[in-house]
Amino acid sequence: MRIIDLIIKKKRGGVLSKEEIDFFISGYVSEDIPDYQVSSLLMAIYFQGMNKQETTDLTMAMVNSGDKIDLSSINGIKVDKHSTGGVADTATLIVGPLVAAAGGMVAKMSGRGLGHTGGTLDKLESIPGLNISQTMERFAEIVNTCGVSVVGQTGNLVPADKKLYALRDVTGTVDNVSLISGSVMSKKLASGSDKIVLDVKTGSGAFMKDVEGAVELAKMMVDIGTLSGKETVALVTDMNQPLGNAVGNALEVIEAIEILGGKHEGDLKTVSCALASKMLILGGIFSSEAEAMAKINEVINNGEALNRFGQMIEMQGGNSEVINNTGLLAAADSIIEVKAEKDGYIQSMNTENMGMVALLLGAGRTKKTDVVDPAVGYWLKKRIGDSVSKGDVLADFYVNDKKNLEESISLFKNSVIIGNNQGKKIDLIYDTIS
Amino acid sequence: MRIIDLIIKKKRGGVLSKEEIDFFISGYVSEDIPDYQVSSLLMAIYFQGMNKQETTDLTMAMVNSGDKIDLSSINGIKVDKHSTGGVADTATLIVGPLVAAAGGMVAKMSGRGLGHTGGTLDKLESIPGLNISQTMERFAEIVNTCGVSVVGQTGNLVPADKKLYALRDVTGTVDNVSLISGSVMSKKLASGSDKIVLDVKTGSGAFMKDVEGAVELAKMMVDIGTLSGKETVALVTDMNQPLGNAVGNALEVIEAIEILGGKHEGDLKTVSCALASKMLILGGIFSSEAEAMAKINEVINNGEALNRFGQMIEMQGGNSEVINNTGLLAAADSIIEVKAEKDGYIQSMNTENMGMVALLLGAGRTKKTDVVDPAVGYWLKKRIGDSVSKGDVLADFYVNDKKNLEESISLFKNSVIIGNNQGKKIDLIYDTIS
Repeated sequence: MRIIDLIIKKKRGGVLSKEEIDFFISGYVSEDIPDYQVSSLLMAIYFQGMNKQETTDLTMAMVNSGDKIDLSSINGIKVDKHSTGGVADTATLIVGPLVAAAGGMVAKMSGRGLGHTGGTLDKLESIPGLNISQTMERFAEIVNTCGVSVVGQTGNLVPADKKLYALRDVTGTVDNVSLISGSVMSKKLASGSDKIVLDVKTGSGAFMKDVEGAVELAKMMVDIGTLSGKETVALVTDMNQPLGNAVGNALEVIEAIEILGGKHEGDLKTVSCALASKMLILGGIFSSEAEAMAKINEVINNGEALNRFGQMIEMQGGNSEVINNTGLLAAADSIIEVKAEKDGYIQSMNTENMGMVALLLGAGRTKKTDVVDPAVGYWLKKRIGDSVSKGDVLADFYVNDKKNLEESISLFKNSVIIGNNQGKKIDLIYDTIS
Repeated sequence: MRIIDLIIKKKRGGVLSKEEIDFFISGYVSEDIPDYQVSSLLMAIYFQGMNKQETTDLTMAMVNSGDKIDLSSINGIKVDKHSTGGVADTATLIVGPLVAAAGGMVAKMSGRGLGHTGGTLDKLESIPGLNISQTMERFAEIVNTCGVSVVGQTGNLVPADKKLYALRDVTGTVDNVSLISGSVMSKKLASGSDKIVLDVKTGSGAFMKDVEGAVELAKMMVDIGTLSGKETVALVTDMNQPLGNAVGNALEVIEAIEILGGKHEGDLKTVSCALASKMLILGGIFSSEAEAMAKINEVINNGEALNRFGQMIEMQGGNSEVINNTGLLAAADSIIEVKAEKDGYIQSMNTENMGMVALLLGAGRTKKTDVVDPAVGYWLKKRIGDSVSKGDVLADFYVNDKKNLEESISLFKNSVIIGNNQGKKIDLIYDTIS
């Protein structure tokens, strides 16, 4: 088999066989196939696409390129959750304890990527003492005890994705449904959970700007999960504005604690409850949405959801007092009110830029070695459709280093569009794919 | 400027500016841009194409990547000739002396490629003593004296093409009209002639299998020549069977001598005269096809064409007696008759495989270090449409090393299709683009 023949086959619209895809991935990981042939094949895939079977074969070849996590020492049906990413998306910290409190099992491994705020691991690390590095034995013990644990990846998971993603990033081949699906699903399948709930974001702050593209991606990922023998459900949800109100690591932990304790409503809670409900049904705990939702409301109201979060924090070495006293989290030096400059309605937000605002304040990283400041970020006070008067506070900025403050305020103001029309309400959950 | 932005622009169907194309080519030659980004861009170009202006800018950027030959010390209007390649295409050896004898100037530099037979340089080197390496001064002197010289390339011509071609060859990005045009025309433009006549082949032995593709390629190359200020004309000619009867280096020299001396008719002569006529008109020697053709026939009949070939051979250090005695050329150990196995008509030929036959006999090279045997090859006795009886000689094989003899005879017989119908006559010249 020669890679040049595979490139030409795909270029001409052919369908690659499982053997050909295995040859491609294993040859690339072993460095028998050079970058310049792989990038050419990736561009041909961009134009000609891959069907469901090819994408599933690609995903499985990627899974088989490295270690696979064995979660068999954890009781029950483990249901994983993954979001394709957006701004103020703290859902994992809410969904995990909710599902655990309602009887499910969540054994979640997160990677540490680049982004406008840190990832889930950075958010957790803003809790004093909490350790995201746990042995497999301890990880299993925590999940078996309190139903939920979120830790960093161990082992050499999906090395093919690390190489492919780095190459796609510099060769203009990121935005292809099959390549995105392979990247996401290979990591999910290698992480060992039995079933998967996906939150596919769409809108100005998401990779997929339009609903059609997001639905296509969601369908492909659900198909891969199904063809790989792991039941998968996807929600397609809105990212035309930050999902929660908090953007920043400690700030997002505070919002999660408030939601788990029943003290905060909003889109982040709605989406988190919808995801938790799907996970509970997939996990076999409930058979209907109504039952699952009733239980979710019960564990929020009776304090069990927040307790589970505290228990997980405690077992991972953190100070669980934070669930009662968020003042224990890192605090910023100053809080600055950013105000509306005219009357009107919030018409739209450039959510991608609103992520950049948090990055400018120091909440995220652009390269692996950047240090995240847990305390900084902002708390959004208005959402799309809200009426504002000149001088109303749009957001509280939590600031330490003031180096980029002016730039971040200016970018924030330019990203929040105020106009005369209230506009129509944005949907929050567009579709469910199962 | 970043190459990733150019890749994405082209991927989305955008038009690259001259500055962007210059950045790409100069960055690639200087090794600031790696192969893996270039191969991705080439595949995007394959799918999205390049318009005339982009292709011209690409060609000129390639020309500017290396040395340019200065032919100003040669008198008159120099007209270059280029064929996109095929089997038994000895036209250069015929066209050069024809044009010179009719009053034109041909200062031709050839490269030495891989192929089923050697290139023009290998054919010339089968003439005892002839030296294809000449200084620029001597090259100019030869052309000024006898009107024609064919030598090997000097200097570092179009290094961008060397790099790009090697990369295209292993990344499935050879077959794109703009990339082919850029490769061919950059070398022609860097070689210093004033005007260019192209012979674009189409058929089973050509790169372009169908006439439409060949016409598209011819139009693109003519446009590039014109936009670059060098008048260019292209003929689209047939390659569904070997053009001449001789396939092999010394054998093709013999056929050229016979045609120049008026002793051999056929498709090779017809195409060579058509090309020579175009070159004489472009060179300003004649203003009509009829005048040019009359002169061409005159110089064949009065011996002047063959004399010019002898003069060129002499001035390049070769034994010019060969034009009167082809027995001075290298001769093969044995001549083997390959015969028809059934009655019928020659219906078609797999011309690409018929090139492979010569390669198997030792006439060509698959890697740069292979040594070409000047004596071997075959002389075709039948052409498409001819009737044959079982036992008729289809070709005389000129053989030294018998290692691959059986394989070559078997491949030859499988490539010459004999059937019951005479079929329709094949056109020889499909189109003229100017």
